[in-house]
Formats: sequence, structure tokens, C-alpha cells
Amino acid sequence: MALRAAGRQSLVDTVVEQLRTQLAEGEWAVGDRIPTEHELAEQLGVGRNTVREAVRVLVHAGLLESLQGNGTFVRSTADPAAVLRTMRHAGALDVLELRVALEAEAARLAAVRREAADLERLREALRVLRGEGDRAADADIVFHMAVVEATHNAAFVEVYRFFSTQVHEVLVEALGDREMPPIDLETHRALVDAIESGDPDAAERVARRLLQEPIDAVSTLFTDR
Amino acid sequence: MALRAAGRQSLVDTVVEQLRTQLAEGEWAVGDRIPTEHELAEQLGVGRNTVREAVRVLVHAGLLESLQGNGTFVRSTADPAAVLRTMRHAGALDVLELRVALEAEAARLAAVRREAADLERLREALRVLRGEGDRAADADIVFHMAVVEATHNAAFVEVYRFFSTQVHEVLVEALGDREMPPIDLETHRALVDAIESGDPDAAERVARRLLQEPIDAVSTLFTDR
Repeated sequence: MALRAAGRQSLVDTVVEQLRTQLAEGEWAVGDRIPTEHELAEQLGVGRNTVREAVRVLVHAGLLESLQGNGTFVRSTADPAAVLRTMRHAGALDVLELRVALEAEAARLAAVRREAADLERLREALRVLRGEGDRAADADIVFHMAVVEATHNAAFVEVYRFFSTQVHEVLVEALGDREMPPIDLETHRALVDAIESGDPDAAERVARRLLQEPIDAVSTLFTDR
Repeated sequence: MALRAAGRQSLVDTVVEQLRTQLAEGEWAVGDRIPTEHELAEQLGVGRNTVREAVRVLVHAGLLESLQGNGTFVRSTADPAAVLRTMRHAGALDVLELRVALEAEAARLAAVRREAADLERLREALRVLRGEGDRAADADIVFHMAVVEATHNAAFVEVYRFFSTQVHEVLVEALGDREMPPIDLETHRALVDAIESGDPDAAERVARRLLQEPIDAVSTLFTDR
């Protein structure tokens, strides 16, 4: 099977797509060693440099891992770039619903696990939110990150960081020149109180109330569903 | 600033890391055109081929986009590969908690949005779950995907697909030879009933009950928190 570059795509891109497809279809499992550069070059009918470049792309994507002198192994079959592509084409409402999923659960976990230092950070974030006018968007991101950090779950924190960036980018693009509704300080304070009280149900209820306003604002602007 | 490769890392890898850092630190915003290959090569003190390869890596990672004859633009500053790295080093419990966040909300949305075809697919998935012995793990994945698909939210579906693969890989690695508890058919059926009834609170409650068992199983095996 000799691959040929289609249109503008370079041969490296074509080999990357070919290997992505083979990974997605389960040709190799996590932990498997994939064929050598030489074997892949032969199988695909391309040069070894092309294979080497394509493998590098997939190593950086987190799908493969090269162990010096030992070959290249499958690290994951889940492709994060596919998630990014979908998020980009999703509507603002779809992305906000994902944010609700993460924030509602983060509020529950935070209510159960928050330590004194978490509550201090949340109170400080509230003060900043109240005090600053035009840096309010940044202050809001800092506040919500503080909630998620109070879960003491590293995976949750990293995924939330990723989504909050994505949500922000999708909303900025979707809203254009229009403004988001002003930040609801009272409900933000109620969330910190609920987390402090240690009641996960109460914390979840307030977290949902907090996100209902941007969802309503976006819903009235778009009918993208 | 002339970059030098550290240890085993190639110069391309070093340039990739350098550009990732500049993107993460906000040197360029989404939509910005980054400097030309020639300019970057000069700034970093490396060859143009090295820059070209590094840019290709970041295009495939979803961070940059090359427009023929028009330059290279920032597509996103959120780095999905970072999420993947964190997930890999997170404990099985951390990852399961993320799954709870997604499944609880998916059950709520599914209860509100499910159509006749969704309910049919869920009932069929239940039948397969009941009927097959050793393919039960696959059948379980199909069942939970059907719940998420009933949300009719494309971003949710793609993110869930990504996580279910990750969760599976993390659990397989964590459990080794030990087996997960048998699938609780009764609770799976109760989830479909709750989704059919159109009651989001009930659907969320059952979804949480369904995940409590694997969480308890993993908790007793590990003390990774």
C-alpha cells in the first residue's frame, strides 16, 4: 500500500492520518510495540524520514511513546485532538452544558473535601470579583478554578482548566461584540457558603443556579440546537 | 536565543516545547498569526526545517492552523495533550470521579431530551448486556454511550467517548489481573426507566448509584488518595 498525498496535504500528514486510523480501529492495543520505522516505511511505501516525522507528531499528541533503542509503543488510543476539533464545531450551549456537568460535581466534591486554605482562597477570590471592574472576566475564571481546586482531584483540575479555556474561546467567538450578563456576586457568595457548610446537595444546587444565567443569555442569542 | 537540545530530546522537540510554552503563556491569542518560519528560525537560532517540523506537530495537536500562502494562526491555547498526560498520572479514583460528573449530567439531559429512537437503542443495549457473558465489558461501554447519545449534545458525546477510553485504560492498568465487580443489571434497567420517565432528578440519582459500585471496588483495592 503506497500512500499518496491528497491535494495540499503533505505525505507526512497522510501518514499521520493513516496511523491515527489504525490506532482508533484498535490495530494495536495500549502497551503494544508498533512496527519499526523501516517496516512502516515499507508497508506504507514512503521514506523513513516521513515515517519518523509522523511518529513524532503522534508522540507529541500523547498517542505513542518512543523508548530509545527499544522501539515505539502505544500510550493511548484516545485522541485528544479529536475532542478539540469537536469542541470547536460545537455550539456555545453544548459547551456550556459540559461546563455545568463539571461545575456541579466539583461543587459537590469541594463541599466534602475543602480545607481551611481552600476556603481562604475562595473568600479572597470573592473579594477580587467584587472589587474589580474590567478585570471581572479574569477574576471569574480564578474564582471557578478555586472551586475546582478544592476538590483535591488533580485530573478534575486539569480537565476543568482545559474546558474553561475552551468555553471562553467558544463564547468569545460566539458572542462577538455582545457582552455577557454582569457577574452575579450574591450567588457566587452563596456557593462559597454552601461549600463551607459541607453540604454537597446545597453546593450543587447553587453551582447550577450560577450557570443558568449564562446559559439563558446564550439561549436567547442563539437557536443553535 | 539559540535553543539547544537537552539530552535525548531532539531539537524539534525542544522547539515544540518552546512554542507550547509561548502559547500557554499567552504570547499570541487565538486568531493571531504567529511569526513566519524564517522569523522563528532566526529568533530560536535553529534551521527552517526544524521550525517547519515543530509547527506541524502543533497543527496536528490542534493548537495551530496553517493556511496555505497566508501563514500560521493560533487555533487554540488549550492543550489537550496536557490533559492526557495528567489523566495518565491521576489515580483511578480521580478518573472515576470525573466519569461521575459526566454520567450524572448526561442522565439528566437524556431524561429531558430522549426520543423514541434513543429509548429503543437503550433497551437493545440492556438486552445485549443481559445476554452476553464475556463481551459484557464492551456491552457496558455501548450502553453508557447510548445514554450519552440521548443528550443530543455532540460535544458531550465526543468528550465522553474520550473519557470512557481513558477510564478504561486507567482501570485496566490499575486493576491488573483483578476483576471488576459483575455488572448490576437491575440498576442499568432502572436508569433506562428513569430516562424514559423524563425525570432528570431520578435519572441522576440512578446514574450515581450505578457508578458507586466501581468506585467502592476501586477504593477497597487502592488507597491512592
